[in-house]
Amino acid sequence: MAKIPTVFSLRHCFVVSLALNVSLVLRMVYECDQGCKGACLKTQSSPSMAEPGSKYVMHQSRLAVSSSSPLVNSNSTQTAHLKVGERIINLDHGDPLVYEKFWRQMGDKTTIVIPGWQSMSYFSDLSSICWFLEPEFAREVVRLHNVVGNAVTEGRHIVVGTGSSQLLLAALYALSPLDAAEPINVVSAAPYYSSYPAMTDYQKSGLYKWAGEAGSFDKEGPYIELVTSPNNPDGHVRHSVVNRSQGFLVHDLAYYWPQYTPISSPANNDLTLFTVSKSTGHAGMRIGWALVKDKEVAKKMTKFIELNTIGVSKDSQLRAAKVLKAVSNTCEQEGSSPEGESFFRYSYNIMEHRWKHLRAAVERSGTFSLPTFSPALCNFFNEVLEPHPAFVWLKCEGDIEDCERFLRGHKILTRSGIQFGVGPKYVRVSMLDTDENFIQFIDRLSAIHP
Amino acid sequence: MAKIPTVFSLRHCFVVSLALNVSLVLRMVYECDQGCKGACLKTQSSPSMAEPGSKYVMHQSRLAVSSSSPLVNSNSTQTAHLKVGERIINLDHGDPLVYEKFWRQMGDKTTIVIPGWQSMSYFSDLSSICWFLEPEFAREVVRLHNVVGNAVTEGRHIVVGTGSSQLLLAALYALSPLDAAEPINVVSAAPYYSSYPAMTDYQKSGLYKWAGEAGSFDKEGPYIELVTSPNNPDGHVRHSVVNRSQGFLVHDLAYYWPQYTPISSPANNDLTLFTVSKSTGHAGMRIGWALVKDKEVAKKMTKFIELNTIGVSKDSQLRAAKVLKAVSNTCEQEGSSPEGESFFRYSYNIMEHRWKHLRAAVERSGTFSLPTFSPALCNFFNEVLEPHPAFVWLKCEGDIEDCERFLRGHKILTRSGIQFGVGPKYVRVSMLDTDENFIQFIDRLSAIHP
Repeated sequence: MAKIPTVFSLRHCFVVSLALNVSLVLRMVYECDQGCKGACLKTQSSPSMAEPGSKYVMHQSRLAVSSSSPLVNSNSTQTAHLKVGERIINLDHGDPLVYEKFWRQMGDKTTIVIPGWQSMSYFSDLSSICWFLEPEFAREVVRLHNVVGNAVTEGRHIVVGTGSSQLLLAALYALSPLDAAEPINVVSAAPYYSSYPAMTDYQKSGLYKWAGEAGSFDKEGPYIELVTSPNNPDGHVRHSVVNRSQGFLVHDLAYYWPQYTPISSPANNDLTLFTVSKSTGHAGMRIGWALVKDKEVAKKMTKFIELNTIGVSKDSQLRAAKVLKAVSNTCEQEGSSPEGESFFRYSYNIMEHRWKHLRAAVERSGTFSLPTFSPALCNFFNEVLEPHPAFVWLKCEGDIEDCERFLRGHKILTRSGIQFGVGPKYVRVSMLDTDENFIQFIDRLSAIHP
Repeated sequence: MAKIPTVFSLRHCFVVSLALNVSLVLRMVYECDQGCKGACLKTQSSPSMAEPGSKYVMHQSRLAVSSSSPLVNSNSTQTAHLKVGERIINLDHGDPLVYEKFWRQMGDKTTIVIPGWQSMSYFSDLSSICWFLEPEFAREVVRLHNVVGNAVTEGRHIVVGTGSSQLLLAALYALSPLDAAEPINVVSAAPYYSSYPAMTDYQKSGLYKWAGEAGSFDKEGPYIELVTSPNNPDGHVRHSVVNRSQGFLVHDLAYYWPQYTPISSPANNDLTLFTVSKSTGHAGMRIGWALVKDKEVAKKMTKFIELNTIGVSKDSQLRAAKVLKAVSNTCEQEGSSPEGESFFRYSYNIMEHRWKHLRAAVERSGTFSLPTFSPALCNFFNEVLEPHPAFVWLKCEGDIEDCERFLRGHKILTRSGIQFGVGPKYVRVSMLDTDENFIQFIDRLSAIHP
């Protein structure tokens, strides 16, 4: 029997094949219930199940006929059918579960042990502007940036945050003129990260306010522009678009890591945000960091976090330090990972694999379109590579006006383009979920036809 | 040789005795340098060093003459002299280092081990309103409240926060009417926690604003009253003082634990805040929790934390669960702690001990006064006991107008009463610092005379 890629296990492929059989029936029932006539007729008219031509689909087909597998009897097949077909796949969030397998394979290399008496104090380092910053974490941040080459750390102050969300708010606070008559305008080019407007405005702050799409921003005076690069949701490399004299820039580089995009040069900005959630996949830690050029800005960001949460979990900082150290080790020391490859090579391969299957599925379907990216030299891998973003910015073609609703009809939850400052023909879909959910997603997408 | 209480080790007592010898000389030099003539003359006129009459001073005296200790030679004595005398004692913060020894004694009972692949997701419990709440932590919160009897948990939603600071802000957000023309007024009776005004106003929120001292609050309309009980800084049991129809109450019960105050009955409020920082001493974890009666309020608090930090560190929640479990175990199961006593008995004994020495030092000094407390039945210990607050609300008597400045002259950093909405004759002093700092504090306080 041919070797199946590790990302798609035998069981997954089997599940997928079962789902393919039942999904169309369920879809017809569901969509007709919803009164979505057009879509219902469309899927009815073209129930093609397993178009050959891709390795992935071939595996499906092979497994689809091998239901004599000792793992399954006919009763359980029936149950599995219904369960898989009925299951809603939530790809609305960017939960980075794809990396779990790597960290399992790493065994106890990143296991952290914290005795009950450790790290009890509020304080971590009184010599640092950011007095709650664990020195070990700070060291590993600097080391990792040097290893990857994605950010200049010299002449920068590190501020740690409870995820990069808190740091974004801290940055808005620190950059807002304190005694201004009006709150400073905060802008970002569309499609922008869907949480920016709510994060900026939920406190109804008199310091800053959301002023919408950066491209159409034409007000006078100071402003803050949020630059996400590669961009969430569409994966494109971004630069500031307003470019006026009184602007402050906040660079959100959560996805500027080799698995997602070629590392062209070390980021050299005034204020840059990073997070472990997307770099290593440890979203549950809630750890982010800012590299800040201006000392006074770093002080004010620290003050914000002091008033907001009196610092940042030491446990998570220590754990993050251990994880970042392991990542750097896999890049620099042979034998630091089970397969001998760096964390970034491992995760790059997964992302490449997923994007390949995604593009094939979209092509088979004929209902959607995807962004295209130019290959570029990645200094980290020293290869010319194509970006493989953490999200798909998917467009529904033809007369499907509400892509989020349409996909919801297929039990795929995504985030509507409306939330990103763009129309409803677009959705954002996470590419970082579990293998099981990703396979289901690809399966369902492939089966949708105009 | 008589047995020395464990809280004052041999080494500590020795250090103290050295400090006593040198501190007056240094103080004279320092204070005259500062141009603080009155104080300088006062301390000069009464350099009494070691008044007998307390166990503590007796230990000092005994050790002060035993400088033939094999631990010290004459050179190192000289160095130690200068270091101790010059050292600034920072009791401005309430860093709960006093508990470290207990957790050391507990050995690996509260050691947490987290493998690198664990807790990677943003999500903890999708069935809970607070989707980032670790079920294990929630269980231990409920168990501990039942064991201690300090809060009703039935019919309450638990919201976890990055410390209780974040939960206080979440409560302000959740209780503020969304479409009001004016921000809701936030009040608290003086002396109030010094951070309340800054925490309420730092974002210049249009939802809520600090309106000062609750006692003199006379505005119409809705308001939020922050009730801290026992109170920070003065340790007194508190109830709401405004008592009007349109008021929302937030009860900050960070110190409602048996080591600080008699547990009279389970708190039964609409919205109550707790934190591990002050209950178990794990401030570095940044974990607090709210018990919330109204489902919609719990939802809005959760939304706040989602926008603020996308949840709360799972690592710290898991660690906190382990620590809370150990605390409950020491209360319910024999042999769960090294000395066989509950965590609360252990910490109660320390606080009682410290307050006894504090009262003796204040009496010896004749320069200060302290709040007095009535004993009350503690249902947890089933004894009538006196409160022993986590802070001293110290008043400088006589013609010392600026108590914070005065104590700074003695190299004791405290927080001025001005910051608590009261005059400069008062300061707040932490009672939770290390043994070493506490002994130094008591020493220096004892040596100050009118």
